[in-house]
Amino acid sequence: MSSKNALSAAIRSIPDYPKPGIIFRDITTLLGDAVAFGQAVDELVAPYAGLGVDKIAGIEARGFILGGALAHQLKAGFVPIRKKGKLPHQTVRMAYSLEYGTDEMEIHVDAVKAGEKVILTDDLIATGGTAEGAVKLLRQLGAEIVSACFVIDLPDLGGRRRLEELGVEVRTLVEFSGH
Amino acid sequence: MSSKNALSAAIRSIPDYPKPGIIFRDITTLLGDAVAFGQAVDELVAPYAGLGVDKIAGIEARGFILGGALAHQLKAGFVPIRKKGKLPHQTVRMAYSLEYGTDEMEIHVDAVKAGEKVILTDDLIATGGTAEGAVKLLRQLGAEIVSACFVIDLPDLGGRRRLEELGVEVRTLVEFSGH
Repeated sequence: MSSKNALSAAIRSIPDYPKPGIIFRDITTLLGDAVAFGQAVDELVAPYAGLGVDKIAGIEARGFILGGALAHQLKAGFVPIRKKGKLPHQTVRMAYSLEYGTDEMEIHVDAVKAGEKVILTDDLIATGGTAEGAVKLLRQLGAEIVSACFVIDLPDLGGRRRLEELGVEVRTLVEFSGH
Repeated sequence: MSSKNALSAAIRSIPDYPKPGIIFRDITTLLGDAVAFGQAVDELVAPYAGLGVDKIAGIEARGFILGGALAHQLKAGFVPIRKKGKLPHQTVRMAYSLEYGTDEMEIHVDAVKAGEKVILTDDLIATGGTAEGAVKLLRQLGAEIVSACFVIDLPDLGGRRRLEELGVEVRTLVEFSGH
């Protein structure tokens, strides 16, 4: 089995979740598999080695799991992008569109310094609404977004293209067609 | 500055948050500091090397950041313990007491196999209500809890003693008196 197929096989597909007709791609089975998790982190990290990345920004909540591992491997700091009302210090807030509605996300105003090199991460990119909001928040603080990386891409939902149109390089490990 | 003092200094204290009289210990400044974050992860990991740990269980949401890094370093899998309604597959649920109320947490029924060696992690231990709930959930699945580790201990709130009374070894890196 190729490396890509091994990662795909470690992801659980749950039909009709969270609603009929949607196949939910459940990354928890990959995270819980030491070999698959190690491989996913190592493959995400590889292209960024030596780039002098300052911070990994992870999107709440599953982006925190990958982001913590990536930050430690790249000897970078970790910055949480959280749902509103969760961060204790002064924040910048951004509305964003979800596949099933809208919400707001926040980042601490001092989480990133102007000119710092940042990689954005989350488990999955679908429509890219959350990632686009995160990119805008990070740029508002003056971050240079080196790349955005995700384990899973749902290319039919257009998120990769949406980020690329914002000038952000996108890296992903496995693709699933449909939702 | 000693290693312990360097970590303490990297944690931001926010007075009167989330309510008057409470000093909130904000770990985001430590996470964002590449040197402090790297040191914290390395110090948490060190005593567990070679123990054959199968899984790191992280408590949502800040426990995910440390847990991802710990799992990768220890070549273990990562298991999320989440607030209710967030996990897509079949779960086991547990009520737990918070400092300011009660809530419920969940774990996937197949997240841990009976006999697997698990380390529980979160950013901070206060009253230990959340950690106790997590220990009970993990044991319900048959996990052998090797240890529980936290960056910050608030010893006056009794969480460490509460876990030790459950027979769980507790490791922490820095202490703050009071709430």
